[in-house]
Amino acid sequence: MTKDPEERSPSLPRVVIEDVEPQIDAGRFPIKRVIGERVRVSARIFTEGHDLLAAVVRVRQAGDEAWQEIPMREEAHDCWEAAFPVERVGRCEYTVEAWVDGFGSWRERLAKKHEAGHDVGSELLEGAELVRQAAARAPATDAAWLDAQAVLLSGDAPAASRVTLALLEELRDRVAEHPDRSRAARHARTLEVRVERERARSGAWYELFPRSCAPEPGRHGSFRDAEEYLAYAAEMGFDVIYLPPIHPIGRTNRKGPNNTPSAGEDDPGSPWAIGAEAGGHKAVHPQLGSLEDFDRFVQTARDLHLEIALDLAFQCSPDHPYVEKHPEWFYRRPDGTIHYAENPPKKYEDIYPLNFECEQWQELWNELRSVVLFWIDHGVEIFRVDNPHTKPFAFWEWLIREVREQHPEVIFLSEAFTRPTVMQYLAKAGFSQSYSYFTWRNTKWELAEYVRQLTRPPLCDYLRPNFFANTPDILHEYLQTGRRAAFQIRVTLAATLAGSYGIYGPAFELCEAAAHPGSEEYQDSEKYQIRHWDLDQPGNVRDYIARLNEIRRENPALTSGGPASFYPVDNDDLIAYGRATADGDEAVVVVVNLNPYHTQAGWVDLPIEELGLDAVQPYQMDDLLGGARYLWHGRRNYVALDPASAPAHIFRVRRRIRTERDFDYFL
Amino acid sequence: MTKDPEERSPSLPRVVIEDVEPQIDAGRFPIKRVIGERVRVSARIFTEGHDLLAAVVRVRQAGDEAWQEIPMREEAHDCWEAAFPVERVGRCEYTVEAWVDGFGSWRERLAKKHEAGHDVGSELLEGAELVRQAAARAPATDAAWLDAQAVLLSGDAPAASRVTLALLEELRDRVAEHPDRSRAARHARTLEVRVERERARSGAWYELFPRSCAPEPGRHGSFRDAEEYLAYAAEMGFDVIYLPPIHPIGRTNRKGPNNTPSAGEDDPGSPWAIGAEAGGHKAVHPQLGSLEDFDRFVQTARDLHLEIALDLAFQCSPDHPYVEKHPEWFYRRPDGTIHYAENPPKKYEDIYPLNFECEQWQELWNELRSVVLFWIDHGVEIFRVDNPHTKPFAFWEWLIREVREQHPEVIFLSEAFTRPTVMQYLAKAGFSQSYSYFTWRNTKWELAEYVRQLTRPPLCDYLRPNFFANTPDILHEYLQTGRRAAFQIRVTLAATLAGSYGIYGPAFELCEAAAHPGSEEYQDSEKYQIRHWDLDQPGNVRDYIARLNEIRRENPALTSGGPASFYPVDNDDLIAYGRATADGDEAVVVVVNLNPYHTQAGWVDLPIEELGLDAVQPYQMDDLLGGARYLWHGRRNYVALDPASAPAHIFRVRRRIRTERDFDYFL
Repeated sequence: MTKDPEERSPSLPRVVIEDVEPQIDAGRFPIKRVIGERVRVSARIFTEGHDLLAAVVRVRQAGDEAWQEIPMREEAHDCWEAAFPVERVGRCEYTVEAWVDGFGSWRERLAKKHEAGHDVGSELLEGAELVRQAAARAPATDAAWLDAQAVLLSGDAPAASRVTLALLEELRDRVAEHPDRSRAARHARTLEVRVERERARSGAWYELFPRSCAPEPGRHGSFRDAEEYLAYAAEMGFDVIYLPPIHPIGRTNRKGPNNTPSAGEDDPGSPWAIGAEAGGHKAVHPQLGSLEDFDRFVQTARDLHLEIALDLAFQCSPDHPYVEKHPEWFYRRPDGTIHYAENPPKKYEDIYPLNFECEQWQELWNELRSVVLFWIDHGVEIFRVDNPHTKPFAFWEWLIREVREQHPEVIFLSEAFTRPTVMQYLAKAGFSQSYSYFTWRNTKWELAEYVRQLTRPPLCDYLRPNFFANTPDILHEYLQTGRRAAFQIRVTLAATLAGSYGIYGPAFELCEAAAHPGSEEYQDSEKYQIRHWDLDQPGNVRDYIARLNEIRRENPALTSGGPASFYPVDNDDLIAYGRATADGDEAVVVVVNLNPYHTQAGWVDLPIEELGLDAVQPYQMDDLLGGARYLWHGRRNYVALDPASAPAHIFRVRRRIRTERDFDYFL
Repeated sequence: MTKDPEERSPSLPRVVIEDVEPQIDAGRFPIKRVIGERVRVSARIFTEGHDLLAAVVRVRQAGDEAWQEIPMREEAHDCWEAAFPVERVGRCEYTVEAWVDGFGSWRERLAKKHEAGHDVGSELLEGAELVRQAAARAPATDAAWLDAQAVLLSGDAPAASRVTLALLEELRDRVAEHPDRSRAARHARTLEVRVERERARSGAWYELFPRSCAPEPGRHGSFRDAEEYLAYAAEMGFDVIYLPPIHPIGRTNRKGPNNTPSAGEDDPGSPWAIGAEAGGHKAVHPQLGSLEDFDRFVQTARDLHLEIALDLAFQCSPDHPYVEKHPEWFYRRPDGTIHYAENPPKKYEDIYPLNFECEQWQELWNELRSVVLFWIDHGVEIFRVDNPHTKPFAFWEWLIREVREQHPEVIFLSEAFTRPTVMQYLAKAGFSQSYSYFTWRNTKWELAEYVRQLTRPPLCDYLRPNFFANTPDILHEYLQTGRRAAFQIRVTLAATLAGSYGIYGPAFELCEAAAHPGSEEYQDSEKYQIRHWDLDQPGNVRDYIARLNEIRRENPALTSGGPASFYPVDNDDLIAYGRATADGDEAVVVVVNLNPYHTQAGWVDLPIEELGLDAVQPYQMDDLLGGARYLWHGRRNYVALDPASAPAHIFRVRRRIRTERDFDYFL
């Protein structure tokens, strides 16, 4: 009945390692970082009794044999920490190991006993033995030195002088270099960091329908036409140009303007109804040009330091070549016809969903992977994934991992507007970035709460939001009614609260506010028809956005800095927050009037110690947006913002001291 | 390079199960319950798209093959819950399983489409197929009925009447009885509940030195003498009598009165210096009597509905038989002598610690297990473990599991006063109960914070505090200086805030307050000398404690109820809280004056809705302690407590309605 204790032998580690952070769902998913960021690992490490411990974080590139070790430090009782930087795109592994520091513990006891005047003759012999054991673990040169110390410790010299020798820091340090780790404890799991390039964390996105880019009204725009817009977007300071699907558009059940059920002969249809005679997901819509035109477009973008992001919408129009060649990849009804997409009672008759779990799913999944690889071959390294939450999670986890094994630089943005659990799970499953609820967070309380949630563990370790201020699907009531100031306000918030942000233009910078009645849909949406934009339209906010993007480039606190800290203001229409770089050297303070109609004024309460500002002398605040300079004094300062002229200040804080604690969630 | 997707096939579950609670450290340790308690399991469960899900908690006694299943309910978006009771002492396993409810999802879509006036002919055929598949999974009788429904659904009747049939709840329910679980998701871990008997959760403990029980001063008391004290403690309403070590006490380096380094000839020494010529851990100190006397003592206790708890102090006096027979079980110094216990600069020369990691550790561990089993054979089922935090965690985890495999009813109390991490880890490793910081929590804020922490997850799922109001090691300054009222106050708090509480008597009920100068040690401590107590000493609080224990017996809210909710009082010297039974039927409200010197008065703010009290009409509050009745009105009521007469009220609340939410942490 009873078991001998062999199974839980004292060869088991004596040390306990608990609560290793960061980790997602007990290591089921990797955490995320970009190159240059650090991973601050913490753990509770302890053992019975009073012995001293030593601990390291072990780190290696996935696939490597050898581990690098970073010593951990006990920052509070039993709470140990260490940080390591990530320097290569790919996967990196880490775990924690800890052991009893036998010599250190002995040394501490010796010091106490000696101080208390006890006879420590026997203790010195014990210490000599510990040093001898360390020598046996050390390479020859060290071993000789250590053995010599052991001889001295157990020698004939007076105890007091041997104690002095025993307590030398050099001895402690050199013994510690050869610790007895035969019974070291290792955290049960090897954890993973998925390291991506900088663009996974920060960038300014510009969504563009190339078909609306023709210089003259009425004509279907092409990639050649859209090249002009590349220069235009680059001038505004954007980093990424995201195109809705560029593939041939189906004819069958094509939607007309404003999503009417049947299209006229000249109506171009929705780009998301992918596939026609001219091809499917690997083809270009003929009216946009040829594949060569696309390649040229990508190259032009690259010359302007812009990246092209494509839309991955894994669904088909009834005219997609897959429908004829692979009817088995779709859902078939008992009468043999294929199911169109629906969300009862809504019908999407121009779209057939793919059956990711059909019997031939392996061919289907492989084909879809080949679609991604095809566009990577054409220079695309960013994909915005349409509605990933309607396809199996397992598919995305597989696809993203597969693609990254060959192309670790590729970035995936998840366009899932659904319950938090699902959005979060997609981020865990591998997406680099995620659309967010930002468009629907408009009050001070909502914004602060939402940003706090996103920038704290566990979310900040795996979900990177991309704050789009509008999308072709979302023209929020705030923008519909708030006039020009609303656009300035929202883009300021987006550009300063999140590393990645985006707009759908030119609708945004032209302050297009006409909505389909009672909805967040644009009136005459580009999703269903070609629009012609006058980029010089009076009242546009091009220059404002250009200045914002310039400020972002000049102030890394806004793109790679820590999370926003929100500051009290005695007016609910004014929101104030600060962000700082990881090293604490640079900080930016933002104040925005959320009321697009009226001037709002109030007292902002700054944490001046944290910001390194003078508590007694006045200090200068430079508004990077308006160019004005203000002389502020102490914690509380008065701000008044008139939405008609300047709805926001972005201040560069001139002097700042480092504070470690600020960056707990960040470093 | 690239992998086919076989490995992540769609035969993988589509459903995700996350955040399964309760669980300790990703299932590394069991949660704890006592018989009759419930385990409320929650999880986030979801899948892609819009399909309906079904989920169950699976439960079984450890060792059983078959699982029982309890359906879970979605209480909020993606948050599912179910509860199960635990009914047998031992180990019980649980996990969560979930799957897509194919028929339910179809039924919901059908209803929406039908309502929207779509043609559903094809849908009905799909539904018929789903019913046919359910029939194929069902036993014959159900299968026939289901097949008949499938025929009707796909028959010639008008679609409208077939829709009516399809939407019948009976059909939904009977199909749901035979779900397709071929791709069900199961939580990655099988979790465990360690189920103990009621005494593991609640009981009133009385610590007693039998050697001080002689009726006449100066004589060494025996078990026979101590039998009188059993009756005395039973009269006061205690459940457990805990005895310090009862084994032969060593002579070598024996401590004298007040821990002086050398004992006189007649000094009895510390009971924790275990082992002498007369034997070791399996022997009885000759002056206490024989093993037969001990057996009789245990039987007398049992007749009085008392249990005996023994002290497990795994250490030896230099005279312990182990020292001669098994010198290899101890730490030896280079000069061949054995290390005494020390915590430099303090020395404990009357005690040799055991080396749990010596080369012969297996024999040692087995021997120590045999000590526990020996006393179990003598009727002991509760062990108070001395300083477990100075022995390896792995030893305790092994020992407790080993003992429980044969004797699941055995209870272990951990006496570790050290850092929270270590105390918590010992509780995780298997101890039923733990000593706490209660003695050092004296202000309202400290008490409320501490109790909140202990009664919330994760602590409440594995650490059960035992609130000792004093111990032979701890006579807190509050008791040293607060006179009689301090004893009443502290025992009232202990008895009403924790399921298990205890006192070290008769020092406690006689309000012994004399401390060794500048310490929390008792002057003339029983640890080192025999005391003689006058149980009828004027000013004792026997009757008060007896009444408290009676109130506990009559009010399960105090022993098996949910955690204390603290109520606002506008006086920091007054603390007020309520506790209620799990079913919400009974509640108790406690108000204590924490100031032992002066009358304190204030307004208590009761959550009368939760307590089921009338907001408009006055209601009666019966003070179970003093017997007085008060007519209260509304939320805020005036309380004045004079420590000289009655430092506390314990009210039984007369009428109470059930509120589920109260018991979130408890059920």
